[in-house]
Amino acid sequence: MKKILVIHGPNINLTGVRQTDIYGREGIESINRQIVSRAQECSFECEVFQSNHEGAIIDKLHEARETCDGVVINAGAYTHYSYAIRDAIALLTIPCVEVHLSNVYARDEFRAKSVIAPVCAGSIAGFGKYSYLLAVSALQSLIQ
Amino acid sequence: MKKILVIHGPNINLTGVRQTDIYGREGIESINRQIVSRAQECSFECEVFQSNHEGAIIDKLHEARETCDGVVINAGAYTHYSYAIRDAIALLTIPCVEVHLSNVYARDEFRAKSVIAPVCAGSIAGFGKYSYLLAVSALQSLIQ
Amino acid sequence: MKKILVIHGPNINLTGVRQTDIYGREGIESINRQIVSRAQECSFECEVFQSNHEGAIIDKLHEARETCDGVVINAGAYTHYSYAIRDAIALLTIPCVEVHLSNVYARDEFRAKSVIAPVCAGSIAGFGKYSYLLAVSALQSLIQ
Amino acid sequence: MKKILVIHGPNINLTGVRQTDIYGREGIESINRQIVSRAQECSFECEVFQSNHEGAIIDKLHEARETCDGVVINAGAYTHYSYAIRDAIALLTIPCVEVHLSNVYARDEFRAKSVIAPVCAGSIAGFGKYSYLLAVSALQSLIQ
Amino acid sequence: MKKILVIHGPNINLTGVRQTDIYGREGIESINRQIVSRAQECSFECEVFQSNHEGAIIDKLHEARETCDGVVINAGAYTHYSYAIRDAIALLTIPCVEVHLSNVYARDEFRAKSVIAPVCAGSIAGFGKYSYLLAVSALQSLIQ
Amino acid sequence: MKKILVIHGPNINLTGVRQTDIYGREGIESINRQIVSRAQECSFECEVFQSNHEGAIIDKLHEARETCDGVVINAGAYTHYSYAIRDAIALLTIPCVEVHLSNVYARDEFRAKSVIAPVCAGSIAGFGKYSYLLAVSALQSLIQ
Amino acid sequence: MKKILVIHGPNINLTGVRQTDIYGREGIESINRQIVSRAQECSFECEVFQSNHEGAIIDKLHEARETCDGVVINAGAYTHYSYAIRDAIALLTIPCVEVHLSNVYARDEFRAKSVIAPVCAGSIAGFGKYSYLLAVSALQSLIQ
Amino acid sequence: MKKILVIHGPNINLTGVRQTDIYGREGIESINRQIVSRAQECSFECEVFQSNHEGAIIDKLHEARETCDGVVINAGAYTHYSYAIRDAIALLTIPCVEVHLSNVYARDEFRAKSVIAPVCAGSIAGFGKYSYLLAVSALQSLIQ
Amino acid sequence: MKKILVIHGPNINLTGVRQTDIYGREGIESINRQIVSRAQECSFECEVFQSNHEGAIIDKLHEARETCDGVVINAGAYTHYSYAIRDAIALLTIPCVEVHLSNVYARDEFRAKSVIAPVCAGSIAGFGKYSYLLAVSALQSLIQ
Amino acid sequence: MKKILVIHGPNINLTGVRQTDIYGREGIESINRQIVSRAQECSFECEVFQSNHEGAIIDKLHEARETCDGVVINAGAYTHYSYAIRDAIALLTIPCVEVHLSNVYARDEFRAKSVIAPVCAGSIAGFGKYSYLLAVSALQSLIQ
Amino acid sequence: MKKILVIHGPNINLTGVRQTDIYGREGIESINRQIVSRAQECSFECEVFQSNHEGAIIDKLHEARETCDGVVINAGAYTHYSYAIRDAIALLTIPCVEVHLSNVYARDEFRAKSVIAPVCAGSIAGFGKYSYLLAVSALQSLIQ
Amino acid sequence: MKKILVIHGPNINLTGVRQTDIYGREGIESINRQIVSRAQECSFECEVFQSNHEGAIIDKLHEARETCDGVVINAGAYTHYSYAIRDAIALLTIPCVEVHLSNVYARDEFRAKSVIAPVCAGSIAGFGKYSYLLAVSALQSLIQ
Repeated sequence: MKKILVIHGPNINLTGVRQTDIYGREGIESINRQIVSRAQECSFECEVFQSNHEGAIIDKLHEARETCDGVVINAGAYTHYSYAIRDAIALLTIPCVEVHLSNVYARDEFRAKSVIAPVCAGSIAGFGKYSYLLAVSALQSLIQ
Repeated sequence: MKKILVIHGPNINLTGVRQTDIYGREGIESINRQIVSRAQECSFECEVFQSNHEGAIIDKLHEARETCDGVVINAGAYTHYSYAIRDAIALLTIPCVEVHLSNVYARDEFRAKSVIAPVCAGSIAGFGKYSYLLAVSALQSLIQ
Repeated sequence: MKKILVIHGPNINLTGVRQTDIYGREGIESINRQIVSRAQECSFECEVFQSNHEGAIIDKLHEARETCDGVVINAGAYTHYSYAIRDAIALLTIPCVEVHLSNVYARDEFRAKSVIAPVCAGSIAGFGKYSYLLAVSALQSLIQ
Repeated sequence: MKKILVIHGPNINLTGVRQTDIYGREGIESINRQIVSRAQECSFECEVFQSNHEGAIIDKLHEARETCDGVVINAGAYTHYSYAIRDAIALLTIPCVEVHLSNVYARDEFRAKSVIAPVCAGSIAGFGKYSYLLAVSALQSLIQ
Repeated sequence: MKKILVIHGPNINLTGVRQTDIYGREGIESINRQIVSRAQECSFECEVFQSNHEGAIIDKLHEARETCDGVVINAGAYTHYSYAIRDAIALLTIPCVEVHLSNVYARDEFRAKSVIAPVCAGSIAGFGKYSYLLAVSALQSLIQ
Repeated sequence: MKKILVIHGPNINLTGVRQTDIYGREGIESINRQIVSRAQECSFECEVFQSNHEGAIIDKLHEARETCDGVVINAGAYTHYSYAIRDAIALLTIPCVEVHLSNVYARDEFRAKSVIAPVCAGSIAGFGKYSYLLAVSALQSLIQ
Repeated sequence: MKKILVIHGPNINLTGVRQTDIYGREGIESINRQIVSRAQECSFECEVFQSNHEGAIIDKLHEARETCDGVVINAGAYTHYSYAIRDAIALLTIPCVEVHLSNVYARDEFRAKSVIAPVCAGSIAGFGKYSYLLAVSALQSLIQ
Repeated sequence: MKKILVIHGPNINLTGVRQTDIYGREGIESINRQIVSRAQECSFECEVFQSNHEGAIIDKLHEARETCDGVVINAGAYTHYSYAIRDAIALLTIPCVEVHLSNVYARDEFRAKSVIAPVCAGSIAGFGKYSYLLAVSALQSLIQ
Repeated sequence: MKKILVIHGPNINLTGVRQTDIYGREGIESINRQIVSRAQECSFECEVFQSNHEGAIIDKLHEARETCDGVVINAGAYTHYSYAIRDAIALLTIPCVEVHLSNVYARDEFRAKSVIAPVCAGSIAGFGKYSYLLAVSALQSLIQ
Repeated sequence: MKKILVIHGPNINLTGVRQTDIYGREGIESINRQIVSRAQECSFECEVFQSNHEGAIIDKLHEARETCDGVVINAGAYTHYSYAIRDAIALLTIPCVEVHLSNVYARDEFRAKSVIAPVCAGSIAGFGKYSYLLAVSALQSLIQ
Repeated sequence: MKKILVIHGPNINLTGVRQTDIYGREGIESINRQIVSRAQECSFECEVFQSNHEGAIIDKLHEARETCDGVVINAGAYTHYSYAIRDAIALLTIPCVEVHLSNVYARDEFRAKSVIAPVCAGSIAGFGKYSYLLAVSALQSLIQ
Repeated sequence: MKKILVIHGPNINLTGVRQTDIYGREGIESINRQIVSRAQECSFECEVFQSNHEGAIIDKLHEARETCDGVVINAGAYTHYSYAIRDAIALLTIPCVEVHLSNVYARDEFRAKSVIAPVCAGSIAGFGKYSYLLAVSALQSLIQ
C-alpha cells in the first residue's frame, strides 16, 4: 500500500478559529479526518503533520524521501519566502503537490508569489478544505 | 440538471501535437471526452468551447452568465495579460475555476503571473488533463 | 452634418447588469440613447458601436478614418494593454476622446495606466454615463 | 444657490504667456470669465482661486469644506507629488473634479501619475480651457 | 525648565471632523490640551504649532533650534516626500520624535515610507492621540 | 515547390496612408507585390495574409503548421504583448522570421520589447519594405 | 488582573554584549526587570519570552491568544521577512505593539521594511529600552 | 546694466551653522556678499533671495521673468521633488543655472536626482560657495 | 565605387572555435570571404575589421566617417553596454546596420538589450553568417 | 589550540544523495572527515554542526561567540533571506567565512543574492567540498 | 608651478564636426587652446589628453597621481558605466572635477546617471566649452 | 608541467599605494611573488598579467585558450559590467576562478553584482592577497 504525507505549515493548526471569514469555521481535526478518508478511498495510507517550525517541516520532508510515495504541502506563509523548504522539496524524487485553503491570488500582493511552486508537480488553491481533497486525488494520478 | 462550461483558450486546440514534452501526446478530443465523462459523474451537463480569439472567449463568458452554473477556464497565454477576460469573469455570479495543463510556475517567468486568478474562485495547475478533471470536481464542491 | 463614432469596448455591453455598485444600474441601451441625444444637440450624427473583440475595434477605427469627424472611445480593459488599438487611434487624423465610466484611478493599480491616452486628444473618467456626454461636448470644441 | 470653488495651482496664473505651444495664448483672466459664465449657466455661484503655495491650496480646500458644494481643481505640478493636497481633498464630503489643460499623458512620464486622482470623483484632461468648462458641467451632474 | 515644541503638519487641524473612522472624533484642541498636560507632568514647557505650509514648518523648526530642547512632529502627508523638512530636522542638535495618529503601515502603500524617519531619534505610530503622549514621554528619556 | 506565408499584423493594412513620416508612402499592395516577386526569385510560393485580429493570426499560424515551409511575421503592436501569438509561433516546426518596417528600438520604449522574438529564428527591423524582402531571403537560408 | 506578553526575537538575548554602539551596554535581564516593573505600574501581569526560533515565536503567539490581553513584540530581523509571524499576529484578537530598540529607518535599507507592522496596532522604534516601556504604556491605552 | 537673481532654497539660510562638516563654517551673509561682488565684476546687478517656502520661490521666479536677465538657483531639497519649481523655471525665457554647495552625487541616493536640472541651462555642484561664483560666471557666458 | 566597412566586435575573432552549438563551426575567415563576396555582388568595396578593444572600434568608426558609405557592425557584448560606441555611431552621417550571429532575444536576458540599436538604421539578428550577408544587402537599399 | 566551528545549513545533511548532478555523490560524513582533517593540518580543533533550523543555527553562532576562534558557514538557502542569521554573524567578534558547494551565481537568480555576505570576512563558492577546505585555510590567514 | 591635466574621453575629438546642434561648431583644438589659456591665467601648467580607450584614460589617471595637482575630466559616454575609471579617480589624492559640454540631464535618460560623480570633487555640465573653463577655475579654488 | 595564468584587471597595478584601508599596504610585486610561489608548490608554471584595458584582457584570455590549463582572474571594476570579458571566459574550455581582494559584498551596491561569476567555475572574495593563493589551490583541485 502506497503512503502519502500531508504537511500543514505555520498557523494552519488554528484553522477553524483563525480569521474565519477567510478560512472557514471547520476545525483542523475535522479537515484532517476528511483528508485521511479521501486518501483511503484512493488506497493511500496517510500521515498528517503540522508544524509552525520551518526546520521541522524540512526535517519531515527529508524523512518522507525514504518513507512516502507522495506529499501534499500547504506551507502557509513559508510559501512566500522559504527557499529552504523549496530546496527540501526539490530533492524529493516523489511528487509533491502544493495546496492553499484560500485563493492566495486574491489577497495581499505578497501571497501571489510562491517560491515552492516551481519545484512542485502542481498547485491547487482557493477551494478551502477541498483543496486538500483534490490534491490527494491529484497525487493518485501522479503516482500511478 | 446543472450545467457547466469548459473554455479552452488559444493554442489548446493543438494539444497532443503541440510541444508534446510539455503538454503530452494525448489529443484534445480525447481529453474533452474525459472532461465530459467526469462532468456526468458529477451530474453536470457539460459544454466544451475552444477559441483562439480573446473576444470570442469574452462573448462566451457573457453567454454563460445566463445559461450555466459554473465555468472551468484554461485561458492559455491570455491568462497573463487579458484584463478584458478578467473583467468578463469578474461580472459572473457563478463560480469560475482556472486551470493549466502544465506547471506554469516552473516555466518562463511571464507565465507565473495570472491576471485572471484574482477573480476566479480557485486555481489548479500542473496535472495535465487531470487539471480539468480536478476542476470539474472542484466546481461540484463550489456549486453545492 | 458632422458625424461622430462612439466605441464601447469589452464587457460594456453588460453595463446595467454588471457590477452595479461600480457601474450603476442603468442599461447600455438607455445610455446609448442619451449619447445620441446629446450628439444631436451638438449637431452631430452619431453611430454607436460595441465589441468585445480587439480586432473589431481596430477595424472600426480604420473605417472611421474616412467616414467620421471625431471618435469617443471607452476601450474597457483594452485601455490598459492594447498597443494595437493605440496604433489604430494614432493613425487617425480626426480627434479621439478617451472615456471611462468609473474613476479608474481609484481602483486596481493596473487600471491607472492607459496605453491609449497618449494618442488621444484628451481623457474623461469617473462620471458614469456623463463621461460620454461630456466627451461628446468635448468633441464639439475640438472639431470646431 | 449652490456654490462651487475652482482652484488653479502653481504656474497657472501665467497661462497665456507661459509655453504657449502647450497651453495656448488665451490669458487666465479670460478663461476665468468663461468658467464663471459656464457656472452661472449651471446655476452655480463660482469662486476662482489661484496660488503657487501648496499650503494655501490646502487652507482653501479646508475652507471649502464648509462653504462650497463642489470643487474643480487643477493642481498643476502638485498633482504629481502632493499627498498633502490629496489628504485635503479626501477629507471633503463634497465632490471634487480634477482637471488639466494639456493631455498630461502625452508629455513627460512623471505627468502621467496623479496622486490626487484616486480621491477625486473624476478627472478631465487635454481640452485646454474646455477642461474647466466640462468639469463645471460634470459637477452639475454630481451635485444633483 | 526645558521646553518642547509639538508640530502638527497638514490637515491635522481638522482632526475630529476629518475621516473619523481613521482619526477618531476627538477634536485637535482637546488633544492639544492633553499633550500640554502630559508635557507638564514631564516638567516640560510645551508649545503646539500647526501649519499646512511646508515652508512654515521649516521656519518653525529653524526657530526651535535655538529655543527648544526637543521636538515632536507629525508631519502629516509631508512625511512621505518632504526632503526639505527632513533637512530641517537633520540640522537640529536637539532630539526630534516622529509621530502618527494612525498606523501608517496598514494603509496606502505610499504611507509606509517616511523620508524624515532616518533623521529622527525615533518613531511612534498607530495609537491615536496617545502617539503624542508617548512621544512626550520618549522625549523625556532622550533629553535627560 | 516550397511555400511561405507572410503575415501582416494590426494596422499594417494602412501602410502608405498611416503616419507616412515613419512608414513611408508606398501602399501595402505595392509592397505585397514586391514580397511575392522576391519570394518567386527564391523559388517560393508565397501567400500574404493581413488581419487586425489576434485570434485570426493565431488561426493562420496553426494552418501554416501543415501547409507552409516558413513564415515571415510582422505582428505590429501585438509584438509587444501577445504571448498567445508567441505560443502559436513556438508550436511551429518550421522557421519563422520576425520583421518590422521601422526601427522599433528608436521609438517608444514599449516598442523595444518583443515577446515573440525569443521563439522566432531571427529578427529584422528598420528597413521599411526591404525588411520583408530581406526576411524572405533569410527564410531561403533557413529552409535549405 | 490583565496579562501581557513581551516577545524578544532573534539575537535580542545578547543585548548588552552585542554591537553596543547600536544597542547599548545594558543587559537584557536588566531591561526585562524594568519592563516587568513598568507593566506592574500599569497593573499588568507580565511574561517575557525570548527565542531565536521563528516557529517558537509563532507557537508562543498562539498560546497568547487564549492567555493574554496584549502583546509587545520585537521580532528582531524576522520583522523584515517573516510572513509566518505576521499571520500569527493577524489571527490574534488582542492588540499587539511592534517595538525596536534602534531606529530601524536610519540603518540598512532592508530594516526600513516591516512585514508585521500592517497587522500590529502600532509601532515604536528608536528609543532603546524605552521603546519597550512606551509600548507597555501604549498597551494600557489600547486595552482599556 | 543686466540684472541677475540668486535664489537660495530651504535651509540654506542656516549655512554656516548647519552641518558644518558638509556645508562649511562660513555664514550665508558672507557668502552672499561674495556672490554680489562676483556679479559686479561681471557687470551684473544682483538680487539675492532666500525662502523655505516652495510657493514663494515660484512667485519669485515668476517675478524674475520680467525683471531679470538670468537666474542662479540652489533649490535645496526641493531640487529632488518640486515639479512645481521645475515648471516655473521652464516658463522662463532667460537662462537659469542650478547650483549645489555639496557634491549631491556623493551623498544620499535621493540627492542624486534633480527634477529641475532638465529645464536649467546647466548645473554646478560640489564646490561650496564657489559653486555660486562659478554659476555667476556661467551666466555671463550664457547671457552674452 | 562605394565602400562599406564591416566591424566585428569582441570575441568574434574566435567564431568557428567558440561555443559552436551557438555560433556554428564555420571559421571567421571563411565568413569574411563570403561577406566580401556579397559586397562585391552589390558593387561595394568592402573592408573587414575586428577588435576586442572598445576604443579601437570607436577609432575605426571615426575613420569610417570620412572614408566609407556604410557600416555593418556586430558589436558583440559591447552591444549591451557601450554607450561610447553608440555615440560613435550616432555621429556618423552614413547608415549603420547592427547584426548578430545568434538570436540575442532567445538567450540571456541581458542580451535582449542593445544600447546601439536606437542609433542604427536597422537591426538583423539570428541568421548566423547570413545576418552579415543580409546586412550588406540592406546597406545596398539604404545607400541608394 | 584554536578552535573553529563549521556550520552546515538546511538540506546539506543530504549531500551525496541530493541532486547529485549539482552537489556530487560524496556523502556529508566523508566531506566532514576531510574538513576536520584539513583543520588539523592548520592546527585547529574543529567542530562540525548541521541543522535545518534557522533558530538552531543562530543559537550555535551565539555559543561560538565564547567558545570559538573562527566560523565557516554554508547557510544553504537561508543565505538568501535570513537576516536573523546575518545579525547573529554580525555580532561575532571572530571571523566568519561564507562557503557554498555550488557556483550560486550560475543557478537560479535568487541564489545570486547573499544577505549574510556583507557581514562575513569573505566568501568562497563553487568548488564542491573544496570550498570548505579552502575556507579553513582562509580562516588560518584571518586568525593569525 | 602647479600642473593640471584635462582629459577628454571618447568621441570628444570630433567636437565641432559631431552633432553640432548639441555640441556646437567650434573645433576641439580651438577649445583646447582656450582651456590652456584659462589655465595659464590661473597659473597652472596644463596638459590636455584625449582618448577613446577606457584603458588609456585609466593609465593616464594613474600617471597623473604622481605628476599633477588636479584633474578635469569629461569622460564622455564612459561617464555612465565605467566603474573602472571611477576606481582610477577614487585612488587619486588630488582633486578631480567632472565636466560635460551639454546638459546631460536634458537628454537621454541614461545620460542622467554618472558613475564617476560620487568620487569627483564636483561636477559642471551644460555650458559648452565654458564647462571646461569653469572647471579650471574650480580647480583653482580646490587646490589652494 | 601544467601552466596557469593570473590576470589582474584595472587599477590593481596600484595595490599597495591605492586606498590602503581597503586593499592593504603590500605592493603588487610582492603579492605576485607569493602567487607564483604558491603556484610552484602546486606544481604549476604561472604567468601573471595586468592591464587596465578591457580589450587587452580579452586578447589575453583568447591566448590562454591554447597555452594554459587554468585561469585566475581579478577583473577589478570590469567585474561589474564587462559582458565582453564574460564572453571571453565563457569560450574557454579550461577552468577560470574569480577572485577579489576585498569583500565586494560589503561595499558599494554595484560591487555586489558580478557579470563574470556565472561563467567562472567558482568565486573567492574578501581575503586580501590570500584570495589569490586560495584560488591557485582551487585550480589545483579543478584541474586534477
